Amino acid sequence: MRLNCDLGESYGSWTMGLDAEVMPHIHQANVACGFHGGDPVTIRKTLRLAAAHGVSVGAHPAYPDLVGFGRRSMALSRDELVATLLYQVAALDGMAASEKVQLDYVKPHGALYNDMMADSEVRAGVLEAIACYHRPLQLMLLATPNADAHRAEAAAAGVAGLLFEAFADRCYDDSGALLSRRKPGAVHSRERTLEQVRQLISEGTVTSVSGERLPLAADTLCVHGDNIEGVRAIEAIRAIVDEA
Amino acid sequence: MRLNCDLGESYGSWTMGLDAEVMPHIHQANVACGFHGGDPVTIRKTLRLAAAHGVSVGAHPAYPDLVGFGRRSMALSRDELVATLLYQVAALDGMAASEKVQLDYVKPHGALYNDMMADSEVRAGVLEAIACYHRPLQLMLLATPNADAHRAEAAAAGVAGLLFEAFADRCYDDSGALLSRRKPGAVHSRERTLEQVRQLISEGTVTSVSGERLPLAADTLCVHGDNIEGVRAIEAIRAIVDEA
Amino acid sequence: MRLNCDLGESYGSWTMGLDAEVMPHIHQANVACGFHGGDPVTIRKTLRLAAAHGVSVGAHPAYPDLVGFGRRSMALSRDELVATLLYQVAALDGMAASEKVQLDYVKPHGALYNDMMADSEVRAGVLEAIACYHRPLQLMLLATPNADAHRAEAAAAGVAGLLFEAFADRCYDDSGALLSRRKPGAVHSRERTLEQVRQLISEGTVTSVSGERLPLAADTLCVHGDNIEGVRAIEAIRAIVDEA
Amino acid sequence: MRLNCDLGESYGSWTMGLDAEVMPHIHQANVACGFHGGDPVTIRKTLRLAAAHGVSVGAHPAYPDLVGFGRRSMALSRDELVATLLYQVAALDGMAASEKVQLDYVKPHGALYNDMMADSEVRAGVLEAIACYHRPLQLMLLATPNADAHRAEAAAAGVAGLLFEAFADRCYDDSGALLSRRKPGAVHSRERTLEQVRQLISEGTVTSVSGERLPLAADTLCVHGDNIEGVRAIEAIRAIVDEA
Repeated sequence: MRLNCDLGESYGSWTMGLDAEVMPHIHQANVACGFHGGDPVTIRKTLRLAAAHGVSVGAHPAYPDLVGFGRRSMALSRDELVATLLYQVAALDGMAASEKVQLDYVKPHGALYNDMMADSEVRAGVLEAIACYHRPLQLMLLATPNADAHRAEAAAAGVAGLLFEAFADRCYDDSGALLSRRKPGAVHSRERTLEQVRQLISEGTVTSVSGERLPLAADTLCVHGDNIEGVRAIEAIRAIVDEA
Repeated sequence: MRLNCDLGESYGSWTMGLDAEVMPHIHQANVACGFHGGDPVTIRKTLRLAAAHGVSVGAHPAYPDLVGFGRRSMALSRDELVATLLYQVAALDGMAASEKVQLDYVKPHGALYNDMMADSEVRAGVLEAIACYHRPLQLMLLATPNADAHRAEAAAAGVAGLLFEAFADRCYDDSGALLSRRKPGAVHSRERTLEQVRQLISEGTVTSVSGERLPLAADTLCVHGDNIEGVRAIEAIRAIVDEA
Repeated sequence: MRLNCDLGESYGSWTMGLDAEVMPHIHQANVACGFHGGDPVTIRKTLRLAAAHGVSVGAHPAYPDLVGFGRRSMALSRDELVATLLYQVAALDGMAASEKVQLDYVKPHGALYNDMMADSEVRAGVLEAIACYHRPLQLMLLATPNADAHRAEAAAAGVAGLLFEAFADRCYDDSGALLSRRKPGAVHSRERTLEQVRQLISEGTVTSVSGERLPLAADTLCVHGDNIEGVRAIEAIRAIVDEA
Repeated sequence: MRLNCDLGESYGSWTMGLDAEVMPHIHQANVACGFHGGDPVTIRKTLRLAAAHGVSVGAHPAYPDLVGFGRRSMALSRDELVATLLYQVAALDGMAASEKVQLDYVKPHGALYNDMMADSEVRAGVLEAIACYHRPLQLMLLATPNADAHRAEAAAAGVAGLLFEAFADRCYDDSGALLSRRKPGAVHSRERTLEQVRQLISEGTVTSVSGERLPLAADTLCVHGDNIEGVRAIEAIRAIVDEA
């Protein structure tokens, strides 16, 4: 089990996230590519930080919506989606290589991530972009009960590898989807978070909102470093992962 | 002698340049990277056009100034300049490779090009960016009497190759610089343009505004495909080049 | 019956539309506000042109999507939508007043226009923005069989006036909606366009795709000046309107 | 003597400045207009905060350089500068009026402010924009020994009022200019800051870096609310101002 975190989301004079505090504790850094955050100077600094800590790097591309931080669905055509992703992935890849870091995977950001999980057309566009890229990259997506279907789609599209992520601090509903943030109990306490991590590692299951035990095979856990509480949680999660 | 042209400068719904008409007649396409023109869909289309015609591709990065089309000097810090260039070059490189085209060189655009020629600090930033890039790329710059000094700077910075370009349709002053566009006679007639091309190829000289014959060693000629007259001029120049 | 046209959609170095040719023939100019087109220099030039021809000016605000030309739906929150509209309307209003032109109305652009017509939540956001504005402005929207319901919504929201527009060159389906552009016969020939204009003026009806005569009360006709054929069509439509 | 502060510089999901903590203690809020910071939602929130505290509002327009936070000089033509300013001022003005706040003045931001003080051409452009605006606005600029010359320029350009600002926490050189931030002693300690405020109010002088007493007539003091120390300093400065 590995830990991944969204990083490099500062933009120009605006700072976001405790990147320097988070980087020592994670395995995979999802680095913003400039379309929702992450100007070139920030990207470069983030890549150097990842290199210094031996952290695997993924591109974290988004809809072209800086003011909305990529959190608003946008109705891109297939061509627009594929080209928009290729541009961002390429920018990250070449900058990473120039810092002697290898880009390993792609994790769509925000509304694009949600649209990818909810809409097979968007997912097909994301897979097409990765398959079009000139060297193989993995796609990081949500661990759900549909993992086998997603693997089949990826294989058909020519995408070699999928990385399934679970959320350490989010409650799951009985269908194995994330409970909507608007529902009570959607975000776990620290204690419940660590419990969920232990259970995911030891049993490959989560306990749903109604108390059901659901199988959930995850390769990596998404963690958040927005503030110092988040960083403390990451440290505690990392300790559990390292012990296992 | 080769012909290079700025292409891929359309942006979203706005069209600029007769790219499809120009591409069959040139050797090198300077492709906009998104910061002054060239959205991802346009970039991809331009790269495919270059691939179809076997045209060498260069990145044409700019200051981040879409509304000003990269034509206004901006006081970037060295770090900002280097990162801004790396980002654009990387985006082009990865997208080109994905269309099975190799990125060969970098030619700064507009105000960045002018600042690079006029200001050794900016030139040092451009060279640093290319030297930092993870694989060797050439820099295209203006052929001037300072070519040897520029070669020495590039070598010191770790940039392997320089491509010197001359302008087919622009009059040179007695110092070997381009005559300012605000001066009378700055832009040649078609006839004078073709004459200048012939002379550059046969003698390696240009005739300056005052009638002096100046040596000017150029690897490539910059041509313009903004309108149909430009395309006709390119065809005529290409015929001269092919004959030589 | 009046004629309205989208103008001021050039952006920086990119030109769009034959604004100078169109302006003498129309009554109402929908001027882009910078979010899908229309940089400050273009806006000012367009306002001066409108002033010179005594043309009424409307703000033509859009989703913040320059590369997509405002043609892609974006899931803005109500607060984001209202503030985004207020900003654009205010920018146009103050610039217009500075050219001694009065801003008379608001016509949303592209995907925002379509979303406004299709989704009552978006429509409520548009009405809220206009009602919040510090002086009364009219809203231009599509003439449909739902005009009475739209009038009631506007009155309830505190928006004083509505301007209903019909399309001169678009075929209507039997429900009184515009026939989708993807369907055959969606865009009329010049002859059918002029016929539709005459019928709208004389009878207040359109003939639908299946040949039905539908009542359609329109205050203004939307015309297009993208190219010289469009300008010729506008001249012909204007002659009919002036005659009536 | 009044206090002014740059506010509304957050952008989308990025937060900057302790606006809610600063607003109760100042007299004048310089509100970002969207070109270096300040998206429409942020602008509206800031205007409401100003309204709630009865704070005078100024537009704080900038070069169009979001990623550089308006801190980098850009070589705009006169037309571009004037239109760019009109657009931003108009957007603020109409949004302010819609929150029942009156826009009182314009204070250029960052590099544009510095360029305005250093370059009479830029200053002429700023004055032209304000003079072109459809209702009178004041210009806030740096209090220097050239105040009379600036007043004459403003009067000749048709700008009614100037507001001269001094910096509470910055050391002045012997010419009455701000000591460059790169020089030692450029930024005062809290104690020296409050002393400078007292002296400006009681004597209309500042003590320069070499100990000279220079006359400096200021209408307003620029204060900074980036962090909690800044807010504490503002409170202390306000106490001195209120006492006087």
